[in-house]
Amino acid sequence: MINVGIVGVSGYSGKEVLELLLKHSQARVTYVSANNSHGKIEDIWPQFAGRTRLNCQRFDIEKAKKLCDLIFLAVPHTISMKITPKLLKAGLRVIDLSGDYRLKTSSLYKKWYKTTHQDLSNLKKATYGLPELYREEIKKSNLIANPGCYPTAALIGLLPLATTNSQLISSITIDAKSGVSGAGRKASTQLLFGELNENFKAYKVLKHQHAPEIDLYLSKVASKLKKIEFVPHLLPINRGILETIYIRCNKTIKLKDIHQIYKRFYKTEPFVRILPLSNQPELKNVQHTNFCDIGLAANEEKNLLVLTSVIDNLVKGAAGQAVQNMNIMNNFKETESLL
Amino acid sequence: MINVGIVGVSGYSGKEVLELLLKHSQARVTYVSANNSHGKIEDIWPQFAGRTRLNCQRFDIEKAKKLCDLIFLAVPHTISMKITPKLLKAGLRVIDLSGDYRLKTSSLYKKWYKTTHQDLSNLKKATYGLPELYREEIKKSNLIANPGCYPTAALIGLLPLATTNSQLISSITIDAKSGVSGAGRKASTQLLFGELNENFKAYKVLKHQHAPEIDLYLSKVASKLKKIEFVPHLLPINRGILETIYIRCNKTIKLKDIHQIYKRFYKTEPFVRILPLSNQPELKNVQHTNFCDIGLAANEEKNLLVLTSVIDNLVKGAAGQAVQNMNIMNNFKETESLL
Amino acid sequence: MINVGIVGVSGYSGKEVLELLLKHSQARVTYVSANNSHGKIEDIWPQFAGRTRLNCQRFDIEKAKKLCDLIFLAVPHTISMKITPKLLKAGLRVIDLSGDYRLKTSSLYKKWYKTTHQDLSNLKKATYGLPELYREEIKKSNLIANPGCYPTAALIGLLPLATTNSQLISSITIDAKSGVSGAGRKASTQLLFGELNENFKAYKVLKHQHAPEIDLYLSKVASKLKKIEFVPHLLPINRGILETIYIRCNKTIKLKDIHQIYKRFYKTEPFVRILPLSNQPELKNVQHTNFCDIGLAANEEKNLLVLTSVIDNLVKGAAGQAVQNMNIMNNFKETESLL
Amino acid sequence: MINVGIVGVSGYSGKEVLELLLKHSQARVTYVSANNSHGKIEDIWPQFAGRTRLNCQRFDIEKAKKLCDLIFLAVPHTISMKITPKLLKAGLRVIDLSGDYRLKTSSLYKKWYKTTHQDLSNLKKATYGLPELYREEIKKSNLIANPGCYPTAALIGLLPLATTNSQLISSITIDAKSGVSGAGRKASTQLLFGELNENFKAYKVLKHQHAPEIDLYLSKVASKLKKIEFVPHLLPINRGILETIYIRCNKTIKLKDIHQIYKRFYKTEPFVRILPLSNQPELKNVQHTNFCDIGLAANEEKNLLVLTSVIDNLVKGAAGQAVQNMNIMNNFKETESLL
Repeated sequence: MINVGIVGVSGYSGKEVLELLLKHSQARVTYVSANNSHGKIEDIWPQFAGRTRLNCQRFDIEKAKKLCDLIFLAVPHTISMKITPKLLKAGLRVIDLSGDYRLKTSSLYKKWYKTTHQDLSNLKKATYGLPELYREEIKKSNLIANPGCYPTAALIGLLPLATTNSQLISSITIDAKSGVSGAGRKASTQLLFGELNENFKAYKVLKHQHAPEIDLYLSKVASKLKKIEFVPHLLPINRGILETIYIRCNKTIKLKDIHQIYKRFYKTEPFVRILPLSNQPELKNVQHTNFCDIGLAANEEKNLLVLTSVIDNLVKGAAGQAVQNMNIMNNFKETESLL
Repeated sequence: MINVGIVGVSGYSGKEVLELLLKHSQARVTYVSANNSHGKIEDIWPQFAGRTRLNCQRFDIEKAKKLCDLIFLAVPHTISMKITPKLLKAGLRVIDLSGDYRLKTSSLYKKWYKTTHQDLSNLKKATYGLPELYREEIKKSNLIANPGCYPTAALIGLLPLATTNSQLISSITIDAKSGVSGAGRKASTQLLFGELNENFKAYKVLKHQHAPEIDLYLSKVASKLKKIEFVPHLLPINRGILETIYIRCNKTIKLKDIHQIYKRFYKTEPFVRILPLSNQPELKNVQHTNFCDIGLAANEEKNLLVLTSVIDNLVKGAAGQAVQNMNIMNNFKETESLL
Repeated sequence: MINVGIVGVSGYSGKEVLELLLKHSQARVTYVSANNSHGKIEDIWPQFAGRTRLNCQRFDIEKAKKLCDLIFLAVPHTISMKITPKLLKAGLRVIDLSGDYRLKTSSLYKKWYKTTHQDLSNLKKATYGLPELYREEIKKSNLIANPGCYPTAALIGLLPLATTNSQLISSITIDAKSGVSGAGRKASTQLLFGELNENFKAYKVLKHQHAPEIDLYLSKVASKLKKIEFVPHLLPINRGILETIYIRCNKTIKLKDIHQIYKRFYKTEPFVRILPLSNQPELKNVQHTNFCDIGLAANEEKNLLVLTSVIDNLVKGAAGQAVQNMNIMNNFKETESLL
Repeated sequence: MINVGIVGVSGYSGKEVLELLLKHSQARVTYVSANNSHGKIEDIWPQFAGRTRLNCQRFDIEKAKKLCDLIFLAVPHTISMKITPKLLKAGLRVIDLSGDYRLKTSSLYKKWYKTTHQDLSNLKKATYGLPELYREEIKKSNLIANPGCYPTAALIGLLPLATTNSQLISSITIDAKSGVSGAGRKASTQLLFGELNENFKAYKVLKHQHAPEIDLYLSKVASKLKKIEFVPHLLPINRGILETIYIRCNKTIKLKDIHQIYKRFYKTEPFVRILPLSNQPELKNVQHTNFCDIGLAANEEKNLLVLTSVIDNLVKGAAGQAVQNMNIMNNFKETESLL
């Protein structure tokens, strides 16, 4: 049994971590904090009434150190990199759900997050917490950069082909669609119900900070891959990401063979499901779960592969993957509290 | 042809007034203003690109006076009562969509709006702009207090019975459900898509400021009526109000007779439709229209009448009714731009 | 560990039972059936891929008897009463989610379900599975009539007052709003997305078959209570019921006292939460949970109490309550797989 | 003033045609029919109560001939080609909203619609009713093949580049997202609210019958263009299509130049709006309008252009464009009843 803290419990991701940990048999939440909301957890999130007596406090590093073995940081980027070094120094382990430790160089971070990184030594040491790629490294890590929601769906979708057949790939276009919870819980006119309901639009076209994250980790398995294009859209729903990934190949492909490659690649993964060739994934099949479902289709004559990848952005795309990482780090059953 | 201004065009009601007036054959919009958004109207509302070249400006009373014969005020309450006396003094006519001129005494206003009324003389002179009740008065008025969205649906629903059979009524309970646009367009965590989508709740239970408005105008036709109870709820949709009104009677009722009373009462009204007894109104039948649809049901043994009334809160509940009032005031065809 | 079957797993309630039982530590699903969908469970519900290898079969009573100790019947009414006597005779226990065993006389059943009951002896023996009312009886029962979704929210809301102060109550009006999953999963034009999305309406006004169920079980604790009025509406969301219950009293009430009565009444109930007086329940706080949240408000001068009660219609209103009943019948921890 | 009939008024497109024509100053609807719904139009569509006294009848060609100058066919494909030749022979003009007359050869039709075309001579004569491409031909035509919803958004998006710079284009990938009304109004489990709400998925991946329609009409302006790829998705909303179109070019592009080309190309079009370079189109800006809004973005280093095109699938994608065609054919003001 380990003692766990959640910093930033008033946001959607922090709340989801708490939701999952309340069902966990080997982790006990001993500390929750948020900067704008204090008091009983049910005053912030009434759904927790009767389920826990936790009190939410303004973040206090001394308390966190005293009460916890491991901390989930569900705070905005730039906040994480201020807190993390102190927690690590005190011997705690950290799973950071922000973007602060994902891009591994200060220049890349600065280019995409428009600010200077403050914790370069840990930036280098952090382990990118995608279990399907780095399970062994996660086991030994003290600092997990929990992947972004879009990169999780994209990388799980692309890793099998990139690992086994990168020379085949001419170009990759990712058309991504996300539910609104991905945008967080800040008072903004753009996020009002009246603006988003029954609406749909693209945003940050070719400019989203998750694009370089996909590039970077894809390059780990396929170094010469041409960079990919990424366009996100906002779906008028609460949860879920679907990415339609168009892969143009430079020679003939056989869809059946690629399907076999994918099934083999993820044969032992507890949370990746390759659908039969006749099926397409749907958000409703992964909402409130830690699964990533992948569908494959192709126009073989034109050397075009169309891959669809779906996750729940708050679970496999954030809190669920964070708990999966905690499970791996602690040698717990990997699916504990996630199935 | 009259020249018309819209003050507060950046809100949902102001926008809807503009939408309707662009189709109007006898009114020309010559002035639009908003306090936080200036520049081309399509920078605020892109749907107007290519349809009008209006520029939105910070409100300037001298400009308004010079350019307009009539002004729609689609601003928050307390703002209206500061602007209105000046516009009236300059000879303009005013249709106020806020709550400032609806409750006819300073004490009632203070009790429900928690602030002191600043324009008592016009408060008394203002005409309550419910054409089904005050069409003749509207024709001669210079200041229209455009009814609240909830009172519009409630009063149209209750007027026939209250006018013809008030002695029959023991109690009235109004259970109201409104789409989110009724709450306006302000950056607030409570109005975020992530908080309201797939959600439903009651709010301001027995404490909504539209309750005394219903009381007041019902008392004009049925002076001894016991006050009514009103509970509003928030629907996860953009537009529309449905009110389920429970009327307990103190003696036997015949549903067929009441249905006849209703059909007769609204026989010549262009925007009220009494449904056949087997039908129930639905929001989708009135959205984007100025209609109020009414359904009737009863448990005759228990002397209970159940009335359902639906409107589009932005049209008959706000902008459409405002334009209907403008048509009446100017002796235009009452349905102009509304059918 | 008991062996459990689910008959009707292709519907929303049957699916939800399976969802819950896959997390249960003492019940193993050994049999699932549906009449129109056979084959691997993931061909019907792709969300179960990788989580269970169950095969769905056409219902076969011999198989059910051989493989199961207890059966959940998630089939339409009239089907239940054909299967139930055979299962009971074979010594299995039955939890019936349909309406077949709720109304305890053949005449009442016939009046509301428009067909003759075929299993009168078990109709009398069946236990109404509302743990908050009949926990002790459930422990010893072989046949549970799992409550309807609307009655669950209504009864939990009304029991405290009816039990302790029934003489106070003059009239009860229940204005109920339900998500669409309550209507089941049948191909019908009326249930199309295009007809219900962004829409809202009342239906079966004063004629819903859940009304007599509320009457009947309320009369068990308050025999002289006047019958209640019930009007359901259809919310454009997937899950959740909110009922606004208007209770007119025949003498002075103190809201604080009633709040105390409610808190005391449900002090030891694991799934009922009485909110603080300033709060109103919201669907999002109970979706995907077995909780019933209750809010209280009043106009003390007018002797009017307004009670709001929310549940997830598929969980506390169907599958969750069914599993709660199974837990009670088997002396498992009552909250097992439900928290 | 012309007399117009609508065949198939019980579907979403037929209803929308009626909605628009009721506001038209030069067309009078004299005949409406549907095969499964007869009687007063408000028994099918209650929103028309009080607005028209039309009766809906089973289709009778003699009545249609007698009462109408022009017919809108809003019926499923294969039905259109049975009715059309008879109407044309009788001297009526026809605007067909189905897919029957869009693909100009019997082999192409058979390949994509899986049935043999029955009216080859008219198939050849029919004019593809995209005013932005064929306005002059439409003026003289008796038979309009009204474009499909997806092709309308795609072609308006692609025509300027294909017309002026086809040699630049290496590949075109269209990722399309449509609201549910595009699927029509048939009782099908797949179209239930419970299946689509809060859900999202791709369908008919690379196999949609609108793909060859886009190919065909693009080839009219750019004969050597490589065929395009098309993947549609289903949005959980009522109305609207957004297509994200990825155009890989074989040499350097300047976004500003392309923006100029687009603005020039559509300078005089009443219903096409090219957005400023910093803006992205949103569905809400075109819903309930006949506009097509287009946004442009690019990664100039990688020779990639990303074009986003939005329409209301029931208006510019069906009924609105049909009325626009009627206006053009009759020399009415092209925007009549559409602005």
